[in-house]
Amino acid sequence: MIIDGKKIAEEIKNTLRGGGLKLAIIAVAPDEASKKFIEKKEKFAKEIGVETRIYELPQDISTSQLRQKMAEISHILENDGVILQLPLPEHIKTQYVLNGIIANKDVDVLSSRAFGDFATGHSKILPPVVSAIKIIFEKYKVDVRNKNIIVVGAGRLVGKPAATWLINQEATVSVLNEFTPDISKFTRDADIIVTGTGKPGLIKPDMIKDGVIIIDAGSLVGDVDPAVEKKASLFTPVPGGIGPLTVAMVFKNLIELNRK
Amino acid sequence: MIIDGKKIAEEIKNTLRGGGLKLAIIAVAPDEASKKFIEKKEKFAKEIGVETRIYELPQDISTSQLRQKMAEISHILENDGVILQLPLPEHIKTQYVLNGIIANKDVDVLSSRAFGDFATGHSKILPPVVSAIKIIFEKYKVDVRNKNIIVVGAGRLVGKPAATWLINQEATVSVLNEFTPDISKFTRDADIIVTGTGKPGLIKPDMIKDGVIIIDAGSLVGDVDPAVEKKASLFTPVPGGIGPLTVAMVFKNLIELNRK
Repeated sequence: MIIDGKKIAEEIKNTLRGGGLKLAIIAVAPDEASKKFIEKKEKFAKEIGVETRIYELPQDISTSQLRQKMAEISHILENDGVILQLPLPEHIKTQYVLNGIIANKDVDVLSSRAFGDFATGHSKILPPVVSAIKIIFEKYKVDVRNKNIIVVGAGRLVGKPAATWLINQEATVSVLNEFTPDISKFTRDADIIVTGTGKPGLIKPDMIKDGVIIIDAGSLVGDVDPAVEKKASLFTPVPGGIGPLTVAMVFKNLIELNRK
Repeated sequence: MIIDGKKIAEEIKNTLRGGGLKLAIIAVAPDEASKKFIEKKEKFAKEIGVETRIYELPQDISTSQLRQKMAEISHILENDGVILQLPLPEHIKTQYVLNGIIANKDVDVLSSRAFGDFATGHSKILPPVVSAIKIIFEKYKVDVRNKNIIVVGAGRLVGKPAATWLINQEATVSVLNEFTPDISKFTRDADIIVTGTGKPGLIKPDMIKDGVIIIDAGSLVGDVDPAVEKKASLFTPVPGGIGPLTVAMVFKNLIELNRK
């Protein structure tokens, strides 16, 4: 069964009231993909009554300049939430810059402070991709305990937060990456696969068992060969799966963090 | 080969200079095991010139009273480091209390703030058990990439920090817990096993392959049947393995956090 993430995101959107909150989005020389993601957020924002402010910064900005800019934008009282659009240029120390975001405006849960609160079960919000996965698991009554769960990729936006959350949910979790000698050895026995590598078609039908649940959190193109559909019991496609839900969860976080 | 953690810890001890630093240890109605661990820390402290202050609190203290006490002790200028001896009585919200420790005095890296810095690669210290494992891996030239690593248990003191660190080291890591249907399915293929469950003899010789590296971070009694020695290429016993090294690393952290 293919999950219609876009439809679920629409349903959630109808329950969200932006109330004039302001979301700052900082982008450094955004490429076409980043521009597309920013546009999606702007569109969603407009539809629920959130005002967006886009700060576009030049490619040659230094780590310290960008960190200072982040702190400045973060401290502007009217900015209720702050997003740093990733990835950044290679020369920038990403985590250091992310740490310029004040924890209670960090809707993406990427600063050390916000991530620590999340990882220790002490946060009122979850990383957007985790919330998106949680919604699907709740909707389709997927219990993660007792399951053999494989997380493919350990990146900042998908694998790491997903693995951290699943471990905290007392799931059995294996985290794979580009150095794993043979990922199919793991994926073949998986009850649930969460993947966010950005490698199109990495997961193929012969690497999975019948009835597996696949959460494809690839970005522009899926990590998963769409032919898995025949074997998977649940499958989030790209586009139209986790992506739109993750965008919705960014705004749910913004509203949650600004609840009085 | 059995690793002599006590001997390595002694070598490290000889390189550490406490310089009169003060370490506060808070314990709530400590049982015999906790008292023993506190004594080990006091002894180590004395030998390197660190002054310890033990605060013993009654069993019936409430979460909010304890949190306030933690904050007080944490803010005493002369206390250079603060330890909350775990476990706490059942009725106490442990993470909330741990968050009363100021991050730069948190030698155990257990507050949300300190853990977040560690998990995002932004900390100058590591959780003591992680440092202990790292020392062994460095000494015996164990490369964690490309290896199949199994972490048994996902507790606050061992499994969670070890898994977080290994994932950040780009290792392939599976985290198991008490709900995992069959842990031997995982341990049989493991190149490295890190275990910290507190279940004596959980890992038996027929559950591992020849040449495996086993880090037993059980506390009073090992998680690992000592008979694994015949099959393991490296093995940290209990007592005398990870334990003494972890104590040494607490003091290394104390010194590191107070370096001017």
